Amino acid sequence: MIRAGIVGASGYTGVELARILSRHPKVELAVATSRQYAGKKISDVYPNLSSITDIVCEDVVPDKLVDRVDVLFTAVPHQTAMEIVPTFVEAGKKVIDLSADFRIDDPEVYEQWYQPHTATQYFDEAVYGLPELNRKKISQARLVANPGCYPTSIILGMAPLLKEGLVDTSTIIADSKSGTSGAGRSAQVGTLFCEVADGFKAYKVGGNHRHIPEIEQELSKLTGEEITISFTPHLLPVSRGILSTIYSSLKEDCNLDEILALYNQYYKGEYFVRLCKPGNVPATQNLRGSNFCDISVQVDNRTGRIIVLSAIDNLVKGAAGQAVQNMNLMCGFEEKLGLDIVPLFP
Amino acid sequence: MIRAGIVGASGYTGVELARILSRHPKVELAVATSRQYAGKKISDVYPNLSSITDIVCEDVVPDKLVDRVDVLFTAVPHQTAMEIVPTFVEAGKKVIDLSADFRIDDPEVYEQWYQPHTATQYFDEAVYGLPELNRKKISQARLVANPGCYPTSIILGMAPLLKEGLVDTSTIIADSKSGTSGAGRSAQVGTLFCEVADGFKAYKVGGNHRHIPEIEQELSKLTGEEITISFTPHLLPVSRGILSTIYSSLKEDCNLDEILALYNQYYKGEYFVRLCKPGNVPATQNLRGSNFCDISVQVDNRTGRIIVLSAIDNLVKGAAGQAVQNMNLMCGFEEKLGLDIVPLFP
Amino acid sequence: MIRAGIVGASGYTGVELARILSRHPKVELAVATSRQYAGKKISDVYPNLSSITDIVCEDVVPDKLVDRVDVLFTAVPHQTAMEIVPTFVEAGKKVIDLSADFRIDDPEVYEQWYQPHTATQYFDEAVYGLPELNRKKISQARLVANPGCYPTSIILGMAPLLKEGLVDTSTIIADSKSGTSGAGRSAQVGTLFCEVADGFKAYKVGGNHRHIPEIEQELSKLTGEEITISFTPHLLPVSRGILSTIYSSLKEDCNLDEILALYNQYYKGEYFVRLCKPGNVPATQNLRGSNFCDISVQVDNRTGRIIVLSAIDNLVKGAAGQAVQNMNLMCGFEEKLGLDIVPLFP
Amino acid sequence: MIRAGIVGASGYTGVELARILSRHPKVELAVATSRQYAGKKISDVYPNLSSITDIVCEDVVPDKLVDRVDVLFTAVPHQTAMEIVPTFVEAGKKVIDLSADFRIDDPEVYEQWYQPHTATQYFDEAVYGLPELNRKKISQARLVANPGCYPTSIILGMAPLLKEGLVDTSTIIADSKSGTSGAGRSAQVGTLFCEVADGFKAYKVGGNHRHIPEIEQELSKLTGEEITISFTPHLLPVSRGILSTIYSSLKEDCNLDEILALYNQYYKGEYFVRLCKPGNVPATQNLRGSNFCDISVQVDNRTGRIIVLSAIDNLVKGAAGQAVQNMNLMCGFEEKLGLDIVPLFP
Repeated sequence: MIRAGIVGASGYTGVELARILSRHPKVELAVATSRQYAGKKISDVYPNLSSITDIVCEDVVPDKLVDRVDVLFTAVPHQTAMEIVPTFVEAGKKVIDLSADFRIDDPEVYEQWYQPHTATQYFDEAVYGLPELNRKKISQARLVANPGCYPTSIILGMAPLLKEGLVDTSTIIADSKSGTSGAGRSAQVGTLFCEVADGFKAYKVGGNHRHIPEIEQELSKLTGEEITISFTPHLLPVSRGILSTIYSSLKEDCNLDEILALYNQYYKGEYFVRLCKPGNVPATQNLRGSNFCDISVQVDNRTGRIIVLSAIDNLVKGAAGQAVQNMNLMCGFEEKLGLDIVPLFP
Repeated sequence: MIRAGIVGASGYTGVELARILSRHPKVELAVATSRQYAGKKISDVYPNLSSITDIVCEDVVPDKLVDRVDVLFTAVPHQTAMEIVPTFVEAGKKVIDLSADFRIDDPEVYEQWYQPHTATQYFDEAVYGLPELNRKKISQARLVANPGCYPTSIILGMAPLLKEGLVDTSTIIADSKSGTSGAGRSAQVGTLFCEVADGFKAYKVGGNHRHIPEIEQELSKLTGEEITISFTPHLLPVSRGILSTIYSSLKEDCNLDEILALYNQYYKGEYFVRLCKPGNVPATQNLRGSNFCDISVQVDNRTGRIIVLSAIDNLVKGAAGQAVQNMNLMCGFEEKLGLDIVPLFP
Repeated sequence: MIRAGIVGASGYTGVELARILSRHPKVELAVATSRQYAGKKISDVYPNLSSITDIVCEDVVPDKLVDRVDVLFTAVPHQTAMEIVPTFVEAGKKVIDLSADFRIDDPEVYEQWYQPHTATQYFDEAVYGLPELNRKKISQARLVANPGCYPTSIILGMAPLLKEGLVDTSTIIADSKSGTSGAGRSAQVGTLFCEVADGFKAYKVGGNHRHIPEIEQELSKLTGEEITISFTPHLLPVSRGILSTIYSSLKEDCNLDEILALYNQYYKGEYFVRLCKPGNVPATQNLRGSNFCDISVQVDNRTGRIIVLSAIDNLVKGAAGQAVQNMNLMCGFEEKLGLDIVPLFP
Repeated sequence: MIRAGIVGASGYTGVELARILSRHPKVELAVATSRQYAGKKISDVYPNLSSITDIVCEDVVPDKLVDRVDVLFTAVPHQTAMEIVPTFVEAGKKVIDLSADFRIDDPEVYEQWYQPHTATQYFDEAVYGLPELNRKKISQARLVANPGCYPTSIILGMAPLLKEGLVDTSTIIADSKSGTSGAGRSAQVGTLFCEVADGFKAYKVGGNHRHIPEIEQELSKLTGEEITISFTPHLLPVSRGILSTIYSSLKEDCNLDEILALYNQYYKGEYFVRLCKPGNVPATQNLRGSNFCDISVQVDNRTGRIIVLSAIDNLVKGAAGQAVQNMNLMCGFEEKLGLDIVPLFP
């Protein structure tokens, strides 16, 4: 048994980590921190966890935690994470950071989209935690930067096409739709039930969302070319789920069957990527609560474009589930240990 | 007072016509047909209409209706409409067909996307009923083809750009999301509450939706060029509302302010088109139940693309409301008579 | 035209008043106050009202408003209302208070359930604004206490039975379910989308909700006996709508037909009360956005109990709509002027 | 490993059995029948099960299945179950029937509420499968009648009070609210998304729901008295979840603390019953996907009534989960084997 700690356990991502880790056969949830709910059981804050875990939220300075954990999950906002991570890395702990603080390779790019960074010395060693692409590096890493939710759906959707060089990389448009849990649990008018229910809208239109540099960086690595994309996020009246609809132009005529074969080959043996049967499409309701990424591909012969649909549960494969998948790799556990959760439908 | 008839009054579009017409100051709802509910009050089928209208559904051959109406709304599936419309047009009645049967100019194109047509002789005179574009022709028409819901949102969103020739017409991608009422009221597993709620997916991916030829035809008219677009519809877990996110590449550097000015100019005086304040975006929950089309425009300087967001209530501006708007024009009434409904929020 | 003012225009009730009053043929919306959004157009806060009204929120001391309005709606929390109302009543304005401050007849009862009251001198003259029961008094009132949402549904549901003395008044249990808009628009974790969606729960169980003294007071007036009820409110994952399921024991065997006849007689001519056809039940989705109260009655012969179902839109008949109905009466307008809104379905 | 079969695997209850059994460490899902989807993988009908199970739906006469299973789950409508069950019981298989066919002790009562029964000879030996009440009998049974969803919530909620004789049994009123999955997956207008979403209503009001005799039978057994209750089911716009609000009059003054102690004692060691902390209430969103029943108790001193709130996931503790719990008991497995699923929130 290893001892795991969650910093920021009372947000939706933190409590999702608690849900998964509480049933992980090789992990003891040793520490959960929350400034707001210090002294309260996490199951008092989230009664779904009653009878599941008795862990009590603590408000401690991270330094005091170092000796109590073997693995640390930082489920805090960017800028907060960078203050916590170094202590643990230096102490030889394995760290999975769910914020954006260690996802970007280039400090300048980071500071352009976020704010000044105080721990750029870890940029080189931090591994981008997408196991399907970086499995080996992750398994040797001390610090893993857990990918953003939108990036996970888009990168997994596009990787085979880009790796194979099939599309004109200047034509990539990702139109993404996310459930409301992605906005977190802070009390805001914009995410009140009455504001979101029975409605739909886009936000951060026109190339303003902070996931853009992360997506572009990882897509670029797959091709070697520098890629710029259009990305528009939307807010769905659902709690969980992201669907990205990704358009790009094929460089030359491609047979759909060949492309499907390519995807099958690329994701062969990847348990958490499910390719839809031809003619089927992913639906977020088919992977609720699970670590799956469902992908379909369709060619529009009229326009020469390929349309990739890629769906995940933003709190699982888009956050806590992928973090545990990374932990499994870092600790030498079977990759799907504790993560083999059947999607809940209906 | 003119006498209006609705053929197909028990579908969601039919009953929405009844909702609007029952409060129209110059219309008497004279006939409502429904095979399935013949003999029943429409308010027994749709109890929201209790105390609003006492009209009883009839199952009559259209010929028998000719003398009872001045205006006819056909809210029936394509192929059925073509069998009903000619009788009324010949009898000098004004007809607004809400099916696809008279929207396509070219019989060959129609038959390629739908099925054989038996009344192509009306194709020339049928006017495409988008008042903001075709107001004058509509006001003189005997037969108006009421636009599809997706086309309405996309054409209104793109018209100023295309008219002005600002975008590369080979780059247009419309990613549209629709509420479930667009699928109608027939009992189907796919639209059961448990299948749709708390989920999201695309359908008819890859250039297969029948609204495509209609969209392309009308966009092409705005430019003179033949336009081919990518169009992907999605199913939202809401009852009403369409949001189209439309991408295209600007031909040259354009200032956002200039583009906003263009939209303001183009839609000046158009009551039912509301341009969002700069920085704001349309949300379907802001036009629930109303005939508005809300539009915003944003330029992504990083990619040179312009992103148009266009939202409507699919049952109102996307169907019944626009039909009544057309009727008002055809009958010489004030265009917004009976349609000045305040959107319901929350 | 009379000039109306709304104090507290940026809450859900305030904006619903704006929605209705903006289309009222005899009212000019002259003033809307909001501390939080002072200086902003109400349509910037609630974009559904774009093109509907240009009114700007003001933050003014009520005294300064006296000369600018003929009728005042106070859509503020209890305790705030009592500070505003006297000035306007004294100035001869008609006041409809949507808070609880003038609903309770007995100051002691008020202070037991709320907090100290500073304007109890108006308790005698304040009229409980349920037009179906108190029409005449309302039409002569200077100050109307607009009923609470739960009380409206329960009192209208039970009035005929109590008036006729048919039920054992010690057996009344009201199990009520409300949409989330009833909780207002303040940013709270408990009403976030992710907390409410796809879920259901009770709150203030065991006789603790502040609507209880109001309900009991008005039910008691109908019988002359002092009535104590059980009342349990629940939170529905919908924006609008209240359904109350009300149980009571019949004093003696009653024929359902006789009871239905009684209801028909009692509510004869009441436009806003719709009695369901025998066998049908009210559904909140059938009165969305309207001022209707839908009622059905069923007898359970096995237990000797009668079950009354009573549904309203909590923001309309449960708040803003009823307030305008009261205003119409107070001003001598036709009672349904501006309120004849067709329910939106689906 | 035992071999389990599901008859009726393509309904919501059947597929929920498949979800749970596919992860049960001592069960091999050997057979799944579905007339409608014969020949299709269940994961093609329910894509959430892709990569989880490859089982193919079969349309076989039950007799042919006898040799292929050790345990049979009949997830078919009443009247169909009675034709299947005898063959398996006679062949010495363990049978868990999820229909109503073997829940009622008295054939006359069954036939009064349902239709003629052809296998009443099994009524005596069939055990009502509520493990918290009948654990021992279940562990020795060949045939278990799995309880209805509403009865499960109500009986578990009331058992301690009735066992202890604390309430006047003539005063019990159960006001229950259920998610839409309880209505099954057949294509019906009444359960379409647009009919259910953003709405709420009661159904089968006045003592007409078929769960009534089942509830009364089991409640009566707890007291020895014959109990008649009022029961009103309602339809919630959620997929999963039942909340029952149960009212009854206390026989004498009872201290809430004593009652809470009673519940704690009664459900001591029962993993699947979670008693809410004092002041808290159950919420269906806190047990989504799990086999828990969450219960709270509150006394209304004003009326002398006790209000019990009892929540379950109708597809799990109200159907498939409880069926697996019964199977575990019948097979001598640990009772929570395969059922220790953490509720999904949000």
